[in-house]
Amino acid sequence: MNAEIIAVGTEILLGQIVNTNAPFVAKRLAALGIDVYYQSVVGDNQQRLTAAIKLAATRSNLVILIGGLGPTKDDLTKQTVAAFLGKELHSEPAALKKIESYFAETHKTMTANNRLQALYIADSLPLKNETGFAVGDFYHDPAKTDFLLLPGPPSELRPMFIKQAVPQLQKTYLNHHVLTSRVMRFFGIGESMIAAKLSDLIDEQTNPTLATYAKENEVTLRLTATGSSDSVTIKLLDQLEKAVKNRIGDYFYGYGDDNSLARVVFNLLKQQGLSITAAESLTAGKFQSTLADVPGVSQVFPGGFVTYSKIAKKSLLGIPAEVIDRYGVVSSQTAEWMAKRAQALLQTDIGISFTGVAGPTELEGQPAGTVWIGLSFKDQPVESKVFHFSKTRPYIRERTVLTGLDWIRRKLVE
Amino acid sequence: MNAEIIAVGTEILLGQIVNTNAPFVAKRLAALGIDVYYQSVVGDNQQRLTAAIKLAATRSNLVILIGGLGPTKDDLTKQTVAAFLGKELHSEPAALKKIESYFAETHKTMTANNRLQALYIADSLPLKNETGFAVGDFYHDPAKTDFLLLPGPPSELRPMFIKQAVPQLQKTYLNHHVLTSRVMRFFGIGESMIAAKLSDLIDEQTNPTLATYAKENEVTLRLTATGSSDSVTIKLLDQLEKAVKNRIGDYFYGYGDDNSLARVVFNLLKQQGLSITAAESLTAGKFQSTLADVPGVSQVFPGGFVTYSKIAKKSLLGIPAEVIDRYGVVSSQTAEWMAKRAQALLQTDIGISFTGVAGPTELEGQPAGTVWIGLSFKDQPVESKVFHFSKTRPYIRERTVLTGLDWIRRKLVE
Repeated sequence: MNAEIIAVGTEILLGQIVNTNAPFVAKRLAALGIDVYYQSVVGDNQQRLTAAIKLAATRSNLVILIGGLGPTKDDLTKQTVAAFLGKELHSEPAALKKIESYFAETHKTMTANNRLQALYIADSLPLKNETGFAVGDFYHDPAKTDFLLLPGPPSELRPMFIKQAVPQLQKTYLNHHVLTSRVMRFFGIGESMIAAKLSDLIDEQTNPTLATYAKENEVTLRLTATGSSDSVTIKLLDQLEKAVKNRIGDYFYGYGDDNSLARVVFNLLKQQGLSITAAESLTAGKFQSTLADVPGVSQVFPGGFVTYSKIAKKSLLGIPAEVIDRYGVVSSQTAEWMAKRAQALLQTDIGISFTGVAGPTELEGQPAGTVWIGLSFKDQPVESKVFHFSKTRPYIRERTVLTGLDWIRRKLVE
Repeated sequence: MNAEIIAVGTEILLGQIVNTNAPFVAKRLAALGIDVYYQSVVGDNQQRLTAAIKLAATRSNLVILIGGLGPTKDDLTKQTVAAFLGKELHSEPAALKKIESYFAETHKTMTANNRLQALYIADSLPLKNETGFAVGDFYHDPAKTDFLLLPGPPSELRPMFIKQAVPQLQKTYLNHHVLTSRVMRFFGIGESMIAAKLSDLIDEQTNPTLATYAKENEVTLRLTATGSSDSVTIKLLDQLEKAVKNRIGDYFYGYGDDNSLARVVFNLLKQQGLSITAAESLTAGKFQSTLADVPGVSQVFPGGFVTYSKIAKKSLLGIPAEVIDRYGVVSSQTAEWMAKRAQALLQTDIGISFTGVAGPTELEGQPAGTVWIGLSFKDQPVESKVFHFSKTRPYIRERTVLTGLDWIRRKLVE
């Protein structure tokens, strides 16, 4: 069983966007035991796309096309595959209704092109797009080449691939086989350190397999086992998880593809019936906004403060001028006052604060990346910690937020 | 003149690393006026690599191979291209000396494989590797296909491509040619609507060309002209820009790849000497955090409020309980009070507020996506507007923030 991936889009050919979809899909195909021998990129050009499809059909069992399902006339993937297969295109009623409802609700003008996004190839299985409008497609013909069509935006491709396509691929190609995956998430440890600590586990892997995946500020491990039944695969995963936790369990914070530090913290706060607020300087609302990415956050979070300037620290939080004047805004004292005052003003169980140098220039003689976090936890004495993050302004602010969430998580599971 | 890029490496096929080399090279080829019609990825497999080279030679003037120049037995690119061309491989003396010196100095054992990195194809131009050992290669044959071989590690590829390869490509293919690009950014209009409004311009394009690129919440247009001099290309771009602005100028907010609505608003505030604050409910700090993505924002932004709960709206902003109780939090009145109170408390020129339903569940009987934005602008009467956004919670919050920024931008350029 081998597959190839064709990304469709002139913006990828021109280098305007990086093709992150191909590795996302390829990595998961590998976990399914499907070999990928070729990847390619073709522009929004029907003739060259047709040639690429013809070539792929001669050498691969499954051709995965990504992109070109949108509403513009550059979007030609469905039409081109349908023409190659000699099939018609049909409109998927639920998808068409979703498109029409969107335009009706938002009072926008719908063009004929928008309807194209609801089309699927006759005799294929349309794949629902939960986060967009373009329907995906899985065309299976046991005698010939199969085609899987996925949308180009990663926010649409990823859920569609995981939730709709992977189960179909499993069903189609892995008949009498159970394949179980488990994702473990880590914060505070880099990918190369994980690779070093787990090198023997990674080298020896056959079943279960172990793959690391690094984003800028966290690393996930995907454990995948195959076997004759769920009980077999789950036992294999449990054993491997135990070995992993023995090495790097201190950095483990949760399971699952759709998880995050914010979600884990929210769930712990909710379980423990605790509330939280924040006073943010360099992060300027990013901590609170990240927490509020999680639906239902109002149960634990009433609101908080963005105190970017000295004046706001004094007037909104009531921090005495002499504290700031004496110690500076980038200080343990200011961080602790911010956390305590925020907690007191909103009468929450937890108050956290962030003050430091987001960069690119230094502040109060301290280099960019110097960050104080203050934490006033229940009625415990207020604490503060200093961190020295490097890299860019966006990295420093993001890292600061996640470090704050991780500190709270560790307090809550103590 | 057209080129294609073949990345060589099983680790890319398996999705273990993201192919950032291809966009790096492609973007610079586009700037040179060299069209890229195909990109592909092949594993470390001589047979499939040979097939890819043969195919590429039938359709492209220049074939760029990236990776597979290293010292392991998986590294086959030079050998495979040389065999295809019927050429021998020679050792480049300076590169060989560099390799030998390194092993002598570090007292490491040099294997025969290490010498392979100094090889280049007979009758080609070897390209020096400043940051590694593997020699690159440019093979030019006016009668046939040209080949450019580059190393896979980005730290080696980038300097070699910029310093060695680009000058060779310019010299070989672009004798008397200038190429100029301009990026225009739009908010509040979708890609399909832009495509519809500009369809004749897009259809007719030859020089300058016009390409749309959509992210979730904005669309950029890239205008690219070629000509004999800068004055020629700039005039062509000015004419096309004027035509574009006639159709969709109302949604245009700025130029450039590295621009954003937050940056444009910050620059306008700074130029006009104005300050801003915000009171955020559903966005929970995301507006303020987005504004603070821009370095130097402290010049215009002292801080603000996150008032997620009713209690915070009352206690932090001092909004009378009867306003909220009578009209609800998702209301024109609450939005206007929030904007006015934030502006008054922080004594800024502008106060903006966001209150509404981020979803996924409804609030006060209003569906997810119902958003009120309040704006208290200088001493003008406070205003408010209601919006109905759809899709997901993250989309609604992001769209709300950008809509607020765009409203302020429009007030500032009035």
